[in-house]
Amino acid sequence: MRLSQMLFVTLREDPAEAEIPSHKLLLRAGYMRRIASGVYAYLPLLWRVLTKVSAIVREEMDATGAQECLLPQLQPSELWKESGRWDTYTKAEGIMFSLIDRRDQEMGLGPTHEEVITAIARDMIRSYRQLPLNLYQIQTKFRDEIRSRFGLMRGREFIMKDAYSFHTDEESLKQTYQDMYRAYTNILQRCGLKFRAVDADSGAIGGSGSTEFMVLAEAGEDEVLYTEDGQYAANVEKAVSLPPDAVPSTFEQFEKLETPNTPTIDAVANFLKCSPTQIVKNVFYNVQYSEGRAVVLVSIRGDQAVNEVKLQNCLQRLLGGKSIFSVEPLDTSAESIDSKEALPVGYIAPSLDWKLFFETYPNLSVRRLTDDLKFSESTAEAILSCWAERLNSLPPLDGLHEAIKLYKEQLESDKSLTARVFEELSQASWLLATELRQKFPTHIRIADRTVADLKNFITGSNETGCHTVGANWGEQFDLPEYVEDVREAKAGDRAVHDPSQTLHTARGIEIGHIFQLGQKYSQAMGATYTAESGEEVPLWMGCYGVGVSRLAQSAVEQSHDENGIIWPIAIAPYHAIVVVPNISDEAQMAAAEKLYADLNAAGVETLLDDRNERAGVKFKDSELVGIPFRIVTGRSLKDGKVEVVQRATKASQEMAIDDVVPTLKQWVKEA
Amino acid sequence: MRLSQMLFVTLREDPAEAEIPSHKLLLRAGYMRRIASGVYAYLPLLWRVLTKVSAIVREEMDATGAQECLLPQLQPSELWKESGRWDTYTKAEGIMFSLIDRRDQEMGLGPTHEEVITAIARDMIRSYRQLPLNLYQIQTKFRDEIRSRFGLMRGREFIMKDAYSFHTDEESLKQTYQDMYRAYTNILQRCGLKFRAVDADSGAIGGSGSTEFMVLAEAGEDEVLYTEDGQYAANVEKAVSLPPDAVPSTFEQFEKLETPNTPTIDAVANFLKCSPTQIVKNVFYNVQYSEGRAVVLVSIRGDQAVNEVKLQNCLQRLLGGKSIFSVEPLDTSAESIDSKEALPVGYIAPSLDWKLFFETYPNLSVRRLTDDLKFSESTAEAILSCWAERLNSLPPLDGLHEAIKLYKEQLESDKSLTARVFEELSQASWLLATELRQKFPTHIRIADRTVADLKNFITGSNETGCHTVGANWGEQFDLPEYVEDVREAKAGDRAVHDPSQTLHTARGIEIGHIFQLGQKYSQAMGATYTAESGEEVPLWMGCYGVGVSRLAQSAVEQSHDENGIIWPIAIAPYHAIVVVPNISDEAQMAAAEKLYADLNAAGVETLLDDRNERAGVKFKDSELVGIPFRIVTGRSLKDGKVEVVQRATKASQEMAIDDVVPTLKQWVKEA
Repeated sequence: MRLSQMLFVTLREDPAEAEIPSHKLLLRAGYMRRIASGVYAYLPLLWRVLTKVSAIVREEMDATGAQECLLPQLQPSELWKESGRWDTYTKAEGIMFSLIDRRDQEMGLGPTHEEVITAIARDMIRSYRQLPLNLYQIQTKFRDEIRSRFGLMRGREFIMKDAYSFHTDEESLKQTYQDMYRAYTNILQRCGLKFRAVDADSGAIGGSGSTEFMVLAEAGEDEVLYTEDGQYAANVEKAVSLPPDAVPSTFEQFEKLETPNTPTIDAVANFLKCSPTQIVKNVFYNVQYSEGRAVVLVSIRGDQAVNEVKLQNCLQRLLGGKSIFSVEPLDTSAESIDSKEALPVGYIAPSLDWKLFFETYPNLSVRRLTDDLKFSESTAEAILSCWAERLNSLPPLDGLHEAIKLYKEQLESDKSLTARVFEELSQASWLLATELRQKFPTHIRIADRTVADLKNFITGSNETGCHTVGANWGEQFDLPEYVEDVREAKAGDRAVHDPSQTLHTARGIEIGHIFQLGQKYSQAMGATYTAESGEEVPLWMGCYGVGVSRLAQSAVEQSHDENGIIWPIAIAPYHAIVVVPNISDEAQMAAAEKLYADLNAAGVETLLDDRNERAGVKFKDSELVGIPFRIVTGRSLKDGKVEVVQRATKASQEMAIDDVVPTLKQWVKEA
Repeated sequence: MRLSQMLFVTLREDPAEAEIPSHKLLLRAGYMRRIASGVYAYLPLLWRVLTKVSAIVREEMDATGAQECLLPQLQPSELWKESGRWDTYTKAEGIMFSLIDRRDQEMGLGPTHEEVITAIARDMIRSYRQLPLNLYQIQTKFRDEIRSRFGLMRGREFIMKDAYSFHTDEESLKQTYQDMYRAYTNILQRCGLKFRAVDADSGAIGGSGSTEFMVLAEAGEDEVLYTEDGQYAANVEKAVSLPPDAVPSTFEQFEKLETPNTPTIDAVANFLKCSPTQIVKNVFYNVQYSEGRAVVLVSIRGDQAVNEVKLQNCLQRLLGGKSIFSVEPLDTSAESIDSKEALPVGYIAPSLDWKLFFETYPNLSVRRLTDDLKFSESTAEAILSCWAERLNSLPPLDGLHEAIKLYKEQLESDKSLTARVFEELSQASWLLATELRQKFPTHIRIADRTVADLKNFITGSNETGCHTVGANWGEQFDLPEYVEDVREAKAGDRAVHDPSQTLHTARGIEIGHIFQLGQKYSQAMGATYTAESGEEVPLWMGCYGVGVSRLAQSAVEQSHDENGIIWPIAIAPYHAIVVVPNISDEAQMAAAEKLYADLNAAGVETLLDDRNERAGVKFKDSELVGIPFRIVTGRSLKDGKVEVVQRATKASQEMAIDDVVPTLKQWVKEA
C-alpha cells in the first residue's frame, strides 16, 4: 500500500483522552479513533493487526480440532433467565447492555455466550457419541463498563475469541482444558509476547478451576504473585500464601485499656508496644446480593488485609449460591453519616451490636423513610428505633410480618404518636415491607484463618479511644461460625507449596482466561445427553476466552519506546516500509518502487511512503507506527545500497539493493 | 473434518418456522439454528460458507484499492441527530435497535454506518491530497424488522459488507461507483450466482443514483422489470414505462349520472360502457412524516395503479426533504369509521372537500379530543365542526394561532357552549395546538401524468352511486398543482428507451446495493476538505453494500432440488465428501482414510463420513448438505475403483482410485 493512497494520519501530540502509553500511541499513529466512551473505530492499520492476531488464534484453535461458528450478539432475555444471570448482568453488575425490541421483548447484547451455546447444545447434542465437541467464534462483544478506559484494554465494544467445550465427564473436560492451555501458550508465543499463566478467580462466569494468561506490562490492571521456582503463579485476587507467624501476646489478663488516638493498627501497636500480629482487626463490609443487602463483620489479624474477591467468593458460598453484586467496605465517611453518634471506627469489637449500628447509621433508614417513603422525620425515627431493637433478636430477613405486626402494636400503645402517623404507616406498610427486605441487612460474621488461633489478643471495645487486651475466643468473644481464608496474599509472603520460596509480584494484562465450568449451565438449562448406559446426564462444559483487541494493544504496551510502537513481527500491520526521502528524485523513486514491488511479491508485506513530506517527518512517522523494518532509498543509492533500519534495535546498516529482498524475507520467516 | 467429530445434525422433517426452500434446507441440514425472531446461530458448516463469501468480497474490494477497517456497532445518538436520522431510524421506521447505557446515553445498534464514517472523515480527511478514499468493513449489522422472516433473507442480525467512499467531486465519485459496479459483478460471478443489476430506489439512505444487484430466484421479495435487449432493468419500485394510450372519451357533455353499485373502476367502466383509460381514479393516502401527518389525494388513470415508493419519493421532494415515515392508503375499513356518514369510497371526486372529510372521519379527531384530551363529546364535536370549516380556507399547517383565536371567539359567542367547556378548552389550548399540528393533516393533491392530458373524462362525484362524465381540467376540476410520475410500471408496458420493447418481470433477492450519496451526509455533519484552491468543500460520498449472509442463503434459494442444497463450488462449505458405506469393512475404511488425507493435502476440502450409520442415511445427508462431489468407497473397491457422484448433475461414475485426487483437483480449479 502507498501511504499517499491510505487513510494515514498521525498526530504530534498525545490526545487528552489517553492515559497509558499504548492508548496514546495507537491514537497518535492513526490506528483507531474514539466514537463513544469505550467504543473505537479500528482503522485500516489496526484492522491488519487484528486480522493477524485472529489468524493465529484461529490456526491454534483449529489445530486442537475446535470448530469455528458465529453465535448471535442479540440474545433473548429468556435464555439468561434460565441460567439465572439476567438480573445479575443487566441490573446488579449492569455489565450487559439490554434493550426492548419493537415486539416488546427484552434482549441483551452478548458479553459472553454460555447461555446461547448451551441452548444449542441442548437442541443438537443427543448422544455421548457426539462428544467431546469444542465450538469457538471470533466476535465483537459488549460490556457496559462503569469505567471504560485505556482504549482497547477496557472497552465497551471489543473483539473476543470465545470457545465452549462439551464433554461426557470431568476427565474429558480436563483434557480439553489442557489442550486450550497449550493453544493459548502457543498463541501468545507466536504473537511474540512475554506472558505468564496464573491461577485465577472464576468470577461471574462460575465453575471450578480457571487459569488466566497475563501479558506482562507495567500498566497492567492485574497483580500477579509468583515464585521463582516457576511452581506457583496466581492473580492476587486468588493467590494463597503463608502469613508470617504471630508474635505471642504478653497480655495475659483480659482488661479494657484507654488507648487515646489509636484508630489505626500501627497507632495501637505503637501505643501498647505490641506486634500487629497480636491484634484482631474488625472491618464492616456492605454486601449487595440478589435478595437484598448484608452487613458483614470480618475479623482478621492486624498485619493482614482482606481480599475482597476472596471475601465475595466466600459469601457466595455462605449465602447459598445467591448472586453477589458488590462487596465494599462500609462507607464511614462523614457525609454518609448524619450521625447522632459516630460508629467507633478504629475501635470496633469482634461482636455485633445492632442497636449501636443503627443508631450510628440512621441514614441507612431515616433518610429512606423520609425521602422515599415520605414519612415525617419523627415517624421515621420512631419506626427505626423500634426496628433496631427488634433486629437484635430477630433472625435475619425472617419474621418480617411478625415484626411489622409488633411494630404496629407499639405504635398503637404509644400515645406520643398521632393517629395521622399511624394512618400514614398503614398505607405504606406494603412498601415498607419491600424496602425493609432490601434495606435492613442480613448480618454475617466471618473470621479470617489468621485470627482463629490467637490467644490473649488485643482488639476493639466498641468504644472510641479504648481497646481490650488479653481477650480470648470462647471467653470474652465468640469465634465467628465461619472461619475462612479471606486474606490478601502479598509479595514477600512464604509460598504454600514450599515455605522456603517467597512470593514475587508483577503487573499483567489479562488477555486470556480458561474455565472448567462443570455442569453449572447444563444443569440450570437442562442440557443433557444420553450416556452409553442410556441415562440422561447433564453435559460437562468448559469455556475459553482470548481478548483479541486487548491482545493487540497489550503488545504495544509491552513493546514501545519514546519514538513509538515496536510491533512484534508476527502481528505488525506490515513487515516493512520503504521510505523515499525526496519523491522528486527520480532515482530514489525508481529504486523505491522496485523494492516495494519486489518485497510484496516475495511475501514481505511492505508500505511505500511516497508522500510529499520532509524525510524527517517520514522517519518519525515510520517509528511512531512501528513497522519492523525501514528501507531508505537515500544517499547510498549511488553505491547501489539502501539503508535498512530495524525498529526494535534501531540497528541501521547499508545493504546492497539486491540483498534487501532475500534478507528481509529471511528476517520475516525467522520471526 | 470427520463427521463423527463434527457438530453434524440433520433433520428429516421441515421445521415449522421455515417458509421458503432455502430456509428449510439450511435448518434441516444443520447449517444454522434460530435463537430469537430473525436471529440465528451460524453453525460450523454455514460459517465456512460465510467465510468463503467474505473472502471473495474482500479480494474484489481490495483489488479496487479499498481499505478494510472495522467500525463500532454501538453508535452514539448524537451522530445520528447530526445527520437528522435518529428519529426516523429509532421511532418512525423504528428499524434501529436503541438502548440507554448506564451513563444514561442513548446508543443505537448500527444498521448502517454513514454517520460514523462521516464523523471519522470529518476528523481525518483534511486535504484533497488524501482523496479519493474507499473504506469498507465486513460486519454484523442489526435491523429491528417488523416482519423478520425467511431465515437469513430478512433477519434482525446479519452480516454485511459496507463500503464508504470519499471524493473531491462527482466525477471521482462516479468513477468509484463504476469500480464498485464491476467489483459486485465479479463477486456474484465468482460465487456462481445468476443475477441482474437493476436501477433502484435509494430509500432511507438517500442520494442520487443507485443500483441493486438481484440474485434471481422465485422466492425473491423484489420484482424486477427488464427488457430483453438488455438495455433496461429496474426494481419495480423505481421502474418507468410508457402506459397504453388512452381511448378517447365519448362523453362530450359534463353531467352527473347515477351509476349505482359501481365502486370499482371495472364496475363503472362496464356500467358506462367506457374504457378504464377514460376514468380519473382518486385515492386518499395517509402520510406520516417528521412534522406530523398529511392526507394526500392522488388522481391517476383508471387502468393504472399508484406506486407507493414513487409516491413517497415525490412527497419527500414536495415536503421539502422532510423525513417520510410511512405512506399508506387511508384506512376506510368500517371499524376505523365510527361514521356519521361514510366517505363515498369508490366515488371520490378529484377535489378535496374537507368538511365532508372530517365529518366522515370523526375518529381522527373526536376520538382524540375525547379520549386523549378529555374533552366532552359535545365540546369535541363543536371544536371539530369549527375546525373543519376553517380548514377549508386555511393554508395547511399555517395560521394555527389565528385559528385558535378565531375558534375561541366562536366558542364565546355561541351560547349553547357552557362556561365549563370554555374553561376546559383554555386549559388544554397548548396541548391542542400540539395535537392539532400532528393530527390535522396537511393536504396535498397530486395528479399522475396519465391523467393530465385526459379530456371529457369520467370521475367520482363525492356522492355514493354517482359519477360525473365529460369532465375537464380547468373547467369542473382544477388540475392539481403537482403532476408527477407516481404510476407503477408493470410487465407488458412499453419501454421508455424503445417503445417497441415490452417489459418482462422476474423475482429477485437484493444482495447488493450501491449508492451515489453525493454531499447529503458531509453537508449535514460538516465533513469538509480543503480543495486545491484553499476552499473548504463538503466531501462527495458513495456507499456500497453486500448482504453476505443473505447472499449465502440466496445461493441455496437459487440452487437446490428435492433432495437438498446444491452449493456452487466456490462457496460450498467443503468440496468433497468421502462416504464409507460400512465402517466395519476395513478395506472401505482404509481406502476412505487415504482418499480423505490425499484430497485434503491436494487442497480439495474434504469431509469423511465415518459415522456408524446406514449407507442410505449417509447418502441422503450428503445430498441434503449439498457437498459438490461425493466419493463412495463401496462395491467397486475390489476393482480398484470408487464411485464419484456430482451433486448438481447427479452424474455418477466409477473412477480408478488413483484418478480421484487429480480429477477432483481439476474440477475444483475449474469452478
